[in-house]
Amino acid sequence: MPTTIGNNRRLVALAAEKKNMVEVCFKPAGRKVWVQGGSTLLEAAEEAGIAVRSECGGEGICGKCKIIVKDSDVANEVTEAEMKHLSRLEINSGYRLACRSRIWRDATVMIPFESRLITREFQVGGLEKTVDLSPAVNKFYVCLPEPTLSDVRSDLQRLIDVLSHQSPDTSKLDIDYRILRKLAKILRDADWKVTITVWHNRRIIAVEPGDTSDKLFGLALDVGTSKIVAHLVNLMTGETTSAVAVENPQTTHGEDIVTRLAFGADEVSLRKLQKLSIQGINKLIQEACVNARVDSNSIYEVVAVGNTAMHHLLLAVQANYLALSPFAPVVKRLTSVPNNSLNTNLRQTSMITFLPIIAGFVGSDTIADALTTGIHESNELSLLIDIGTNTEVLVGNSDDIISCSCASGPAFEGAHIKHGVKAVRGAIEKVQIDSNSKVHYSTIGNTRPLGLCGSAMIDIVASMFKSGIIDDRGRFKDRHIPRIQRDIGEKEFVIVSKEETATSREITVTQKDINEIQLAKAAIFAGCSILTKRKDIELRDLDRVFIAGAFGNGINLENARLIGLIPDLPIKKVTFVGNAAISGAKIALVSKKARDTANILSKRIRYCEITLEPDFKTEFAHAMFIPHKDLSRFPSVKEMLKGV
Amino acid sequence: MPTTIGNNRRLVALAAEKKNMVEVCFKPAGRKVWVQGGSTLLEAAEEAGIAVRSECGGEGICGKCKIIVKDSDVANEVTEAEMKHLSRLEINSGYRLACRSRIWRDATVMIPFESRLITREFQVGGLEKTVDLSPAVNKFYVCLPEPTLSDVRSDLQRLIDVLSHQSPDTSKLDIDYRILRKLAKILRDADWKVTITVWHNRRIIAVEPGDTSDKLFGLALDVGTSKIVAHLVNLMTGETTSAVAVENPQTTHGEDIVTRLAFGADEVSLRKLQKLSIQGINKLIQEACVNARVDSNSIYEVVAVGNTAMHHLLLAVQANYLALSPFAPVVKRLTSVPNNSLNTNLRQTSMITFLPIIAGFVGSDTIADALTTGIHESNELSLLIDIGTNTEVLVGNSDDIISCSCASGPAFEGAHIKHGVKAVRGAIEKVQIDSNSKVHYSTIGNTRPLGLCGSAMIDIVASMFKSGIIDDRGRFKDRHIPRIQRDIGEKEFVIVSKEETATSREITVTQKDINEIQLAKAAIFAGCSILTKRKDIELRDLDRVFIAGAFGNGINLENARLIGLIPDLPIKKVTFVGNAAISGAKIALVSKKARDTANILSKRIRYCEITLEPDFKTEFAHAMFIPHKDLSRFPSVKEMLKGV
Repeated sequence: MPTTIGNNRRLVALAAEKKNMVEVCFKPAGRKVWVQGGSTLLEAAEEAGIAVRSECGGEGICGKCKIIVKDSDVANEVTEAEMKHLSRLEINSGYRLACRSRIWRDATVMIPFESRLITREFQVGGLEKTVDLSPAVNKFYVCLPEPTLSDVRSDLQRLIDVLSHQSPDTSKLDIDYRILRKLAKILRDADWKVTITVWHNRRIIAVEPGDTSDKLFGLALDVGTSKIVAHLVNLMTGETTSAVAVENPQTTHGEDIVTRLAFGADEVSLRKLQKLSIQGINKLIQEACVNARVDSNSIYEVVAVGNTAMHHLLLAVQANYLALSPFAPVVKRLTSVPNNSLNTNLRQTSMITFLPIIAGFVGSDTIADALTTGIHESNELSLLIDIGTNTEVLVGNSDDIISCSCASGPAFEGAHIKHGVKAVRGAIEKVQIDSNSKVHYSTIGNTRPLGLCGSAMIDIVASMFKSGIIDDRGRFKDRHIPRIQRDIGEKEFVIVSKEETATSREITVTQKDINEIQLAKAAIFAGCSILTKRKDIELRDLDRVFIAGAFGNGINLENARLIGLIPDLPIKKVTFVGNAAISGAKIALVSKKARDTANILSKRIRYCEITLEPDFKTEFAHAMFIPHKDLSRFPSVKEMLKGV
Repeated sequence: MPTTIGNNRRLVALAAEKKNMVEVCFKPAGRKVWVQGGSTLLEAAEEAGIAVRSECGGEGICGKCKIIVKDSDVANEVTEAEMKHLSRLEINSGYRLACRSRIWRDATVMIPFESRLITREFQVGGLEKTVDLSPAVNKFYVCLPEPTLSDVRSDLQRLIDVLSHQSPDTSKLDIDYRILRKLAKILRDADWKVTITVWHNRRIIAVEPGDTSDKLFGLALDVGTSKIVAHLVNLMTGETTSAVAVENPQTTHGEDIVTRLAFGADEVSLRKLQKLSIQGINKLIQEACVNARVDSNSIYEVVAVGNTAMHHLLLAVQANYLALSPFAPVVKRLTSVPNNSLNTNLRQTSMITFLPIIAGFVGSDTIADALTTGIHESNELSLLIDIGTNTEVLVGNSDDIISCSCASGPAFEGAHIKHGVKAVRGAIEKVQIDSNSKVHYSTIGNTRPLGLCGSAMIDIVASMFKSGIIDDRGRFKDRHIPRIQRDIGEKEFVIVSKEETATSREITVTQKDINEIQLAKAAIFAGCSILTKRKDIELRDLDRVFIAGAFGNGINLENARLIGLIPDLPIKKVTFVGNAAISGAKIALVSKKARDTANILSKRIRYCEITLEPDFKTEFAHAMFIPHKDLSRFPSVKEMLKGV
């Protein structure tokens, strides 16, 4: 096992000598770590707490974990996998894949910018909705009568009797056992003046000396496959006081759900995955509290949402069967556990509530999407598309809602795209290619470009199609365009030359990248199409479309429609709602009623396993075209193409 | 900290040398232990797991922890406290008090028979009552339909849906989080055929492969100040399959409640006391399971009763305020915690239910007494006296019950009596002194006598009074009786000569012993008298009297009446019910309804703090007489004395 070096550096060094351990120094952070000789550099980086990109979970498949090793003789020889992912120039410059290089001697390792997981400036917010403030946690400042020989009620009864004057129903009130243990001293030290925090009129989760009734915070959490978002909410006012996000640290064990579920098949690895996501949550707690100058002890409840896999993994519920047909979840219902079951850095007695889920691949994030957009409250027929590593689709209204999950893959999040990045600072988010193949772009944060995020890929494919660079099958046309070049036989289109980029390497879009986007959008469109069919409606019957997802400042809806990602409807019917999941989690955090709604939705929303639908293959194949094989389904695009 | 020696004896010996540790060998058990030089032999014995008698918690006050040290130069010099408690002969023979001797070199220590705490042959049972079998835990063997693509209910829902056909109400059913975590694998490994254990229709506490529905056991526990009793009950039949008892290991930190509460004032000591009682419970679990050939995994619920202090200490609820006026308990209500909160050797998800208590000094054992005797169900006016270190008294009927606690002290349990012992094997339990001062006695187990237990003391005081050896103030009359001798100025009456005893030392009753019994019985009688007065009745109005307590095969009720321990009523109205507390715990274990009754009783039974009653002092002083200062209250005794 690797060992982190602390203050007792000499002692560790001594131990290291004996146990064949080596010291690795990671640049530019300068962080040092001791690991067992023979560990991979990916393991060493994890031990050092440095997040290195890895989509395949260290299998040598994705090629994203590029690092530079200063001396070549400290590690094993370059492997075949590395030959495949690294250019000759890179290999000569010391580039390695972190997951393939095993380190045998002390080494200095440089992590290039593009391999670092950047944990800030994620999109953290979504559509906000006004809801009545009725949180599940409430505080009551009370002065208790002291026990006397003529009043020897128990300490607990004394508390409950006083509460009964202020709280609606105390008949089912219980107390957290950890508080009961200390209650006698708390009350007497506080001279019988205490603030009691009650959860759901059911459970006393805090008894604090004095009047702390003005300090009542909750945390909304959206635990995504690739990132975790937290909003700190003042439960007295409903105001969001801080919004933060972090890469899901589980990502080092695979960017996609299936890899992670496979990794977590045994108890030890499951606990490891749980610990990693809790580490991420702890970072968020700290950051949110610092930002808002709030003591983390003032956070009494967390409402978490996430896809079913993230939900199960965070609870350390055995989830490997989720990846196997028929993909049954272990638990669907709303689940609340005291924090001591998860051991985040909140008070032990805080409650953590997971909203209910819908199915194995449609999680509580989708329930939260519904809470945010209110599609279950409206007579209008709505389509909701939450684009992520898996894309969830809802179709329906107050009468009935049907859901599905589309295996869109993480292409819209920048993965599986040669120069793809998430919607972080430096990501190109908007692109326009004019008729002369000139490229106009803008980046998040207006810095030098780092790579292409999902919204840029939509723009690029749309622009290339519109300007005739690619055909309706996404293939580069056989035209001479200066910006098209070949790399190892594959055609690619240069978006930004190396002189302009942050990495000093050009940013291109390859034939494969375009196909990845086609695969992703085809999966999503097929889902939308099949769900509407199952509801016996046409896509054009839809009154509203909501697009949710981590697209920075949003996506160009015309372009999304042009490539056939969303149905051909008037753009005014389409709304980009950003991270609707975190907004929905917040709604449930501040409103008990919304939790009841979530429970109802969890039971009511039907689930459709679209891959089993007989028309799925055809729908998918037709949707691979740009915008679609059947142009009659995209009349506005058909019209536009006429003008080209 | 002392270290127990294990297999790695040489390593420990090496470590010991360095750390100034010494080896102590305890005879006759032959158990060896390493302790820090300077530890007391009481600490060393505790570390070795050998229970040595100690009433004062190691303060050098009670003089009960006599041991024999082979070489005098291995320990400190004989202290003043030891001079007081040991005769010159004893000191010369190597006798020490374990709590006062600090050991500095390797030593062999003999624990004489009278200093050993004997953990068997306690009285473990009480009056048994027939109740309808309706335990809180139920098992259901079910075959679940496997998930299919057209049936993707969650694993948990699948379980609950099938249960809903067998169980009355599953709407509030929840599952222990630890089981939820493993549920997926359990179900699949068991091929979807499992036995589900449900607690109170509320909580799934076990899911086991296959059909285990015929294995359903519960444990009733009576956690007394001096001993813990457990009955293992087959919850399918209601049958008691094993009854065992053990000295409460907390006794090493004081025989009385107040000493123990003072010891447990800080968190570390409180946890230590909790751990000690759990050690005792674990011993009982093991013994009961071995006796009955039951796997401890088949025990799904524990129902525990005990006085308020034992209740709080077992839950590690801060209890030091219990010893301070106004003696308010922290919690009164029925309290259930999953076993993982206490960590006994039962399955982690078993439930431990503590019956509710009445007041700071009237615990759930008294509620259990009521359940056993049914005084709350009858129109007849009953008096219940549960004699222990504290004696609880109930007076009332189905209309109203009033309770109090009498500080009787442990004299009836053999403590504070020179040759007193508990009702263990070898204890003299019956004594008759004839008019010629000849003594007839019998011992528990018919072995050579070890000492005097409570029932013998009642007989002795009654006989001595009847035969004119002592007067109505308990004083030895100025008569020449060969069996009366003086020891350090104090008169004592020889019950058994040293030739006949197990200890080779004579067994006597001293003037002080008689006074201890007077103090104890006066406290009890004052309690009974005051409670009846508060109910505006006379003692002679009582229809029934129940005597509970650890008196081996019971007490001579005539003698108890003669000394004024119980009111002067026809003996046919008086019933000895033994350990009624464990019987009541069993009733609650097998009957949910009895728990509801317990809850009602906890609220309904009034509490009277008798020491605050204006007539307490007078009542107590008058009851110090044998049988009472006011002989008109003991007409049958008055009649008898006439005949003498």
